[in-house]
Amino acid sequence: MGGNIKNYKKVVAYWETDQMGIVHHSNYVKWMEEARLHFLREIDLPYEYIEHEKYMLPVYKVEVIYKKPARFADRIEIKTSIYELTNVKIGLKYEIFNDKNQIIATGKTLHPFTDMDLKIKKMPLKFYEHFNKFFITEEIN
Amino acid sequence: MGGNIKNYKKVVAYWETDQMGIVHHSNYVKWMEEARLHFLREIDLPYEYIEHEKYMLPVYKVEVIYKKPARFADRIEIKTSIYELTNVKIGLKYEIFNDKNQIIATGKTLHPFTDMDLKIKKMPLKFYEHFNKFFITEEIN
Amino acid sequence: MGGNIKNYKKVVAYWETDQMGIVHHSNYVKWMEEARLHFLREIDLPYEYIEHEKYMLPVYKVEVIYKKPARFADRIEIKTSIYELTNVKIGLKYEIFNDKNQIIATGKTLHPFTDMDLKIKKMPLKFYEHFNKFFITEEIN
Amino acid sequence: MGGNIKNYKKVVAYWETDQMGIVHHSNYVKWMEEARLHFLREIDLPYEYIEHEKYMLPVYKVEVIYKKPARFADRIEIKTSIYELTNVKIGLKYEIFNDKNQIIATGKTLHPFTDMDLKIKKMPLKFYEHFNKFFITEEIN
Repeated sequence: MGGNIKNYKKVVAYWETDQMGIVHHSNYVKWMEEARLHFLREIDLPYEYIEHEKYMLPVYKVEVIYKKPARFADRIEIKTSIYELTNVKIGLKYEIFNDKNQIIATGKTLHPFTDMDLKIKKMPLKFYEHFNKFFITEEIN
Repeated sequence: MGGNIKNYKKVVAYWETDQMGIVHHSNYVKWMEEARLHFLREIDLPYEYIEHEKYMLPVYKVEVIYKKPARFADRIEIKTSIYELTNVKIGLKYEIFNDKNQIIATGKTLHPFTDMDLKIKKMPLKFYEHFNKFFITEEIN
Repeated sequence: MGGNIKNYKKVVAYWETDQMGIVHHSNYVKWMEEARLHFLREIDLPYEYIEHEKYMLPVYKVEVIYKKPARFADRIEIKTSIYELTNVKIGLKYEIFNDKNQIIATGKTLHPFTDMDLKIKKMPLKFYEHFNKFFITEEIN
Repeated sequence: MGGNIKNYKKVVAYWETDQMGIVHHSNYVKWMEEARLHFLREIDLPYEYIEHEKYMLPVYKVEVIYKKPARFADRIEIKTSIYELTNVKIGLKYEIFNDKNQIIATGKTLHPFTDMDLKIKKMPLKFYEHFNKFFITEEIN
């Protein structure tokens, strides 16, 4: 299960570069969000459905490690997976690849489940069970 | 009247540059929004009050003309003024100056008044009258 | 000719929304850039090649008209075409469609050809001739 | 020493919000950059001078923890300090305050010194000594 989740793909935009000639580091945080919402679509639990059910997934923590620069017009892919899951939070990790299949960056985000007023709220069991199918523990963290 | 409205000032951020070594053109649209909301604060009709009164000012049209590039760490100023006013829309224009007092860009935005569902709605007379005090027609457009 | 140029497609990202619940208007300027660079790839004159040949295409003027809001997760398409061409400048126009094939916004950008120091420079004849093949004048502007 | 370094101040822009009605988390990474470059100006080692001397400070790692949401028009302050310093890298930390002097977020960034081709390069002794004056170790990390 989970083997057929497609990576998120994108072509680096010109506006994402800065005067160093590489992608500005803040954009990776946006890419991770795009990859995260793509991942939720891939596992058939789209974020718009989560908001429709009156839950939100704000970000509590974000971390990115930049290993190699990305440049304008690069074709990148992002693999998203679940690294932590309880009934009130979900942790996702991201591996960003260039088109030579090299990891150029890794990242993590941690999200509480909240109601529409940003108060923490236990996620519905159906959400938990669904996420849990895609939570492949390869190791004790 | 209107003579004591302060220009919006900012220092150009690094993330606003692109690989041409100059500010990416999309940021000017953000700057014009910052200048517009600064202008509304200056004339004592802050946008948060407008939304509090259940009106919104979405953008119907935006136009920017780029005359000279802006660069990282430049100190710029934006002068905002009203160029059009009816009971359902307001048009604002922007002059962006560098620290040598040269105009580096000009812009215009046109905004309908809407309700919170984005339906056009006549603005309250108190808003119209207030804006009208700052609507200095120098010429027939 | 030009009939097989594919539209630029994208899914609206969450970070592109603002507290009105719709896409912030500044993002359309980024989308138009993405569509423009996609168009240059489609006509086999990718922008990275233009910069490799020591030319740049900064933006002199941008204009966007917003007809209907775009929302998170919307699937949009952008059709780009050339509306003006001389040996020192190119004008592009954009039609942004939602997935019901309705136009939600239109835009235009005008670009001088410059050298790497942003000085205006006549474009090489090979560029002009190439663009000209895709410059379909439907009307006198 | 260092006691007179002013915090970076800003008013939250409308474009920084998302449809949750709060500031999108990616903007904090931009704010931390703005605060960092403000800090370098405050300690009289502006980043534009560093690039003029043919060094760059790309980001190797970024981390943000979000404690309370920020909203449109909030007045925030960011306190930047050095938490790590060797002759090839500098680590900065950030405390983001709202106008009630509550910490709404904290962050860290780690930066190698590189040449203009992004190769790691030992920083000049004058840079190291200057940074070291502002590196106040309150604790063993």
